[in-house]
Amino acid sequence: MTTTVITNIGNLVTNDPERGTGPLGQIQDAAVVLDGETVAWVGPTANAPAADEAYDAQGRAAIPGFVDSHSHLIFAGDRTQEFNARMEGRSYEAGGIRTTVKATRAATDEELEANLVRYLAEARRQGTTTFETKSGYGLTTHDEARALRIASRHTDEVTYLGAHIVSPDFADDPAAYVDLVTGEMLDACAPYARWIDVFCEKGAFDGDQARAILTAGRAKGLMARVHANQLTYGPGVQLAVELDAASADHCTHLTDEDVAALAGGNTVATLLPGAEFSTRAQWPDARRLLDAGATVALSTDCNPGSSFTSSMPFCIALAVRDMRMTPDEALWSATAGGAQALRRTDVGRLTPGARADLALLDAPSHVHLAYRPGVPLVRTVWQRGQQVPA
Amino acid sequence: MTTTVITNIGNLVTNDPERGTGPLGQIQDAAVVLDGETVAWVGPTANAPAADEAYDAQGRAAIPGFVDSHSHLIFAGDRTQEFNARMEGRSYEAGGIRTTVKATRAATDEELEANLVRYLAEARRQGTTTFETKSGYGLTTHDEARALRIASRHTDEVTYLGAHIVSPDFADDPAAYVDLVTGEMLDACAPYARWIDVFCEKGAFDGDQARAILTAGRAKGLMARVHANQLTYGPGVQLAVELDAASADHCTHLTDEDVAALAGGNTVATLLPGAEFSTRAQWPDARRLLDAGATVALSTDCNPGSSFTSSMPFCIALAVRDMRMTPDEALWSATAGGAQALRRTDVGRLTPGARADLALLDAPSHVHLAYRPGVPLVRTVWQRGQQVPA
Ligand SMILES: [Zn+2]
Ligand SMILES: [Zn+2]
Repeated sequence: MTTTVITNIGNLVTNDPERGTGPLGQIQDAAVVLDGETVAWVGPTANAPAADEAYDAQGRAAIPGFVDSHSHLIFAGDRTQEFNARMEGRSYEAGGIRTTVKATRAATDEELEANLVRYLAEARRQGTTTFETKSGYGLTTHDEARALRIASRHTDEVTYLGAHIVSPDFADDPAAYVDLVTGEMLDACAPYARWIDVFCEKGAFDGDQARAILTAGRAKGLMARVHANQLTYGPGVQLAVELDAASADHCTHLTDEDVAALAGGNTVATLLPGAEFSTRAQWPDARRLLDAGATVALSTDCNPGSSFTSSMPFCIALAVRDMRMTPDEALWSATAGGAQALRRTDVGRLTPGARADLALLDAPSHVHLAYRPGVPLVRTVWQRGQQVPA
Repeated sequence: MTTTVITNIGNLVTNDPERGTGPLGQIQDAAVVLDGETVAWVGPTANAPAADEAYDAQGRAAIPGFVDSHSHLIFAGDRTQEFNARMEGRSYEAGGIRTTVKATRAATDEELEANLVRYLAEARRQGTTTFETKSGYGLTTHDEARALRIASRHTDEVTYLGAHIVSPDFADDPAAYVDLVTGEMLDACAPYARWIDVFCEKGAFDGDQARAILTAGRAKGLMARVHANQLTYGPGVQLAVELDAASADHCTHLTDEDVAALAGGNTVATLLPGAEFSTRAQWPDARRLLDAGATVALSTDCNPGSSFTSSMPFCIALAVRDMRMTPDEALWSATAGGAQALRRTDVGRLTPGARADLALLDAPSHVHLAYRPGVPLVRTVWQRGQQVPA
């Protein structure tokens, strides 16, 4: 196994308060030793052990690779004109998500996989080293299972979202679609997925349906996560906490009881500011959640309809500007917070034993991700100890 | 002179309505021929002439290089903690712009130049091929002149902004500072600059002072541009139009008379959404200006205090989301609009005779600059016919 020592890191975020200063466990003039796929050592450059290879960070900041715990990247088709119309305030008579469902069903496996690979590479170049992605644009047993099969070749964090919307084929009989999602479709999908998710929202699935879907998934060994309280108040967040879901995602419309439930449970509140940006919607109130003691993650929600960004730095800038997170909190939420939303302890931090996933920034500190919005500051990325091609 | 043909451009923006469809003069399946530093030909790939070298755009979109007509890149020092404090709502007892003035005065020429070169390279990688930059952090004859001398080695669009704020050294006698700015300092600076600018705002320079400064500059052959109506209503915009300034920049607080003046004159309204983003300020109303018939440019205002972005794509995404520009309008304003704000006709468009400045996007159309916010979509850039190193 080759070891690599990265020296002269101006500021290193370890996310381990015992290894450095503050909640982010920061170390100045730091070094990191990678041993194969794993972090072997972190500390001051002055104390760094020798290694087979050396990389001089020249004062740049280093952070754990981003953990993007929410994306929808198995899709085909184009919704540029729908975006254009929305931005211009024109109504647009296309199917919204149905456009993507139709195109995804019509695409070949090769097309879907090529699309996924392209977006994953794009995300990786921007510092994302762990990505979750979901099905949900197939909505048939065949199409959901193939989406997950394709995704499972490229990431361990695969989520079955047959319950994205009621399939248009079942418009007259939503209950039959829930039966399918919890029956034959689940059986076909479970082997490829780690998670089950449901869009619990007016117009999608109500609390009872969501509970049935998540419970069926858990019986097949899938862990729960929930699209909750995005567009309206509703039962999603409390259901997520009750079922010990790893994450309740969106959390834009929360009652005091919802906030208290999140603060009292093990469910992470995953906020997706790209969605609010791209749909001109109300921002989730990260400050309220943090002040109540809830755990907050940040993620892109990358999808062609409502949030077509793959940029975790962009989400950090929005979280700081519009959701009243501090730059430190936003960085934590985009790394360690995302890891917690995936119930992972091996990513989202840079401490011995963690995965050798890190990003060097063209900046002296991670604060610049918010201070310099839109600027591609991620310069060099290692994933599992391998340098990612630029 | 080497000629290069770039073929298979999925969608080309020429900004010449006579060359293609719509106000952006778009051509599908297009090609561009570069002859040395100049565009020699544009049209459909099927009709493209042969050239010494060929580049296959593989369906990517191409746009004119961005024209960033407003930046402040001759500076030294760090204001990260001030940003942090502002975002956290804490008051911060540092000097704001005075911090930068102090650090800039203390820096060596080499430090200032290295900093400038670094930010220009960063902007270039993001598709900016024409940049204006200003003095204004020296505020002594010596420091203003050396800032402009350094800038003039790297761009033709150099602006003398001795009238950024009243120098702290003249806090008790602002009139004496105006005398300096219009006298000895102007004499020392004029040889290196094309433009003169003034921050016409409460707390900086009033209408009479601004008029005196711009008039003195014009007498020395400098053309006028104005920081106008950013923080409050005021005389800046109307003064700019009256003096035929090329641009009134910011335009956040406008009366109906201000809008009418801009619509009726030759002064471009340059909007700088990075500043509003980074200071959580009210957005300028681009829609109102466009609907009245004014010409709008978009620019970064890149500076370490109030807008530390160098990303024109980020400004486009904000303009579409928050200033109600369409994606087409925003693209035009970031290219041809910027050119008009610099009274240039050789940049900001891709037609024969124009400068061979263009960017290829990792996307099928320029709309994706707004549709995919934060994603570094600019893949390959040519400036004066030379491919910019990634
Ligand atoms: Zn989602
Ligand atoms: Zn400015």
